Formats: sequence, C-alpha cells, structure tokens
Amino acid sequence: MSAVDPERHCPAFQITVELAGRRWNGAILLAAERGATRYSEFLAAVPGISERLLAQRLRELDAEGLVERVVVPSTPVQITYTLTGKGAELVDALRPLIAWGERWIGEGTRADG
Amino acid sequence: MSAVDPERHCPAFQITVELAGRRWNGAILLAAERGATRYSEFLAAVPGISERLLAQRLRELDAEGLVERVVVPSTPVQITYTLTGKGAELVDALRPLIAWGERWIGEGTRADG
Repeated sequence: MSAVDPERHCPAFQITVELAGRRWNGAILLAAERGATRYSEFLAAVPGISERLLAQRLRELDAEGLVERVVVPSTPVQITYTLTGKGAELVDALRPLIAWGERWIGEGTRADG
Repeated sequence: MSAVDPERHCPAFQITVELAGRRWNGAILLAAERGATRYSEFLAAVPGISERLLAQRLRELDAEGLVERVVVPSTPVQITYTLTGKGAELVDALRPLIAWGERWIGEGTRADG
C-alpha cells in the first residue's frame, strides 16, 4: 500500500460526493428541493427508479439525516419526506452541477438508461 | 410507469452527480486538480483504491473527456493524466462539497472503508 498523500486526499469530500452521487440520490434530493414530499411525487420526479429502490433510498437518506420522514396521522395516513437543514445545504452545494450538466451533457438527455 | 414530472426532474444534473459520485471518481478528480499527474501519484492520493480500479477509472475519465492522457516519450516512457477544461470546470462545480463535507462529515474521517 503506497504512503497516503495528505495534500491531495480529502476523505470528507470523497464521502460526500459518493453519497450525493450514489445512483438516484442526487435526483431524489433535487426533487425534494423542488417540492416533492410524497412517495408518488418522488416516483414521478425520478424516471426509471423502481418502487423498491425508491423506498430503500428514502430510508438511507433519512438515516443520513438528509431528509426527515414524517407520518401524517390523517385518514388515510400519509408519509412525507422533506429536506433537513443538512439536506438543503447539500442540495445548495450540488447546485453548480446543474449548470455544468446543462453545459457539458445537454438538456435533452435521459438519465434512466 | 408514473408520468414524468418535468418540473422536478433534471436528467443532465442526475448524470453529472452520478458521474462525479461514482466510487473514487471525485477523489481522483480532486487529486488531479491538486497536482497529481502520474499513476503513482494518484495511487498515493486515493487511499484504498486498487491498482486495477485506478487504471479503469482513469480510462473512463479519459473517455468522458474529463482528463487527458498524454504519453511522454522519455526513457522510460511516462504517462500523465491532466484535467481538461471540462474536468477542471467539474472540479470547480464540486468545490462546495468540500466545505459541506468538512462541516457535516468531519475532518478525521476515512473514506476507504
């Protein structure tokens, strides 16, 4: 194992970009920032994601403290997912990637391949 | 399949964050931005990555146009990888994640778990 180069390695950044970049996470976080709160709204906002995987990702994002799961005691019961402060700050930090994506990847692209 | 919600879905962003967030990509790009050019320097800058996977990721980043692979005809031959304009812009766009990571994940973290 080579000696670690502390000047060029930033573990917190690596964890962050790999958390945000995990398949579907970025799209779910952006959808939450753009107003999605219910499961069906996330399903519509992230084309291609399966129902099972959306449920799993929402659980993971809840466990990471990026979204907050709230059970609304209505009839029928409703469950909402909203960005926490930590999650909202992450979406803000990701915002420059929107412009980069539009410049280098282009508008008419599909992401559910 | 639910109808797509165009207001909340941004495919170019999703592709971008999943490209940057792919395991090791962020750390490699940051190392390149911080001066790593040779294979051994990337290996030292990204603790935990295997030699095989580093070679694969450098090929992928080259194919994506994010780094440029140059063969230096010295003796012995040397191969360098440097950020392209596209790659440098991506690292700039990722920069806010460094501060987010340091705030929410913390300095002393390891990322090669």
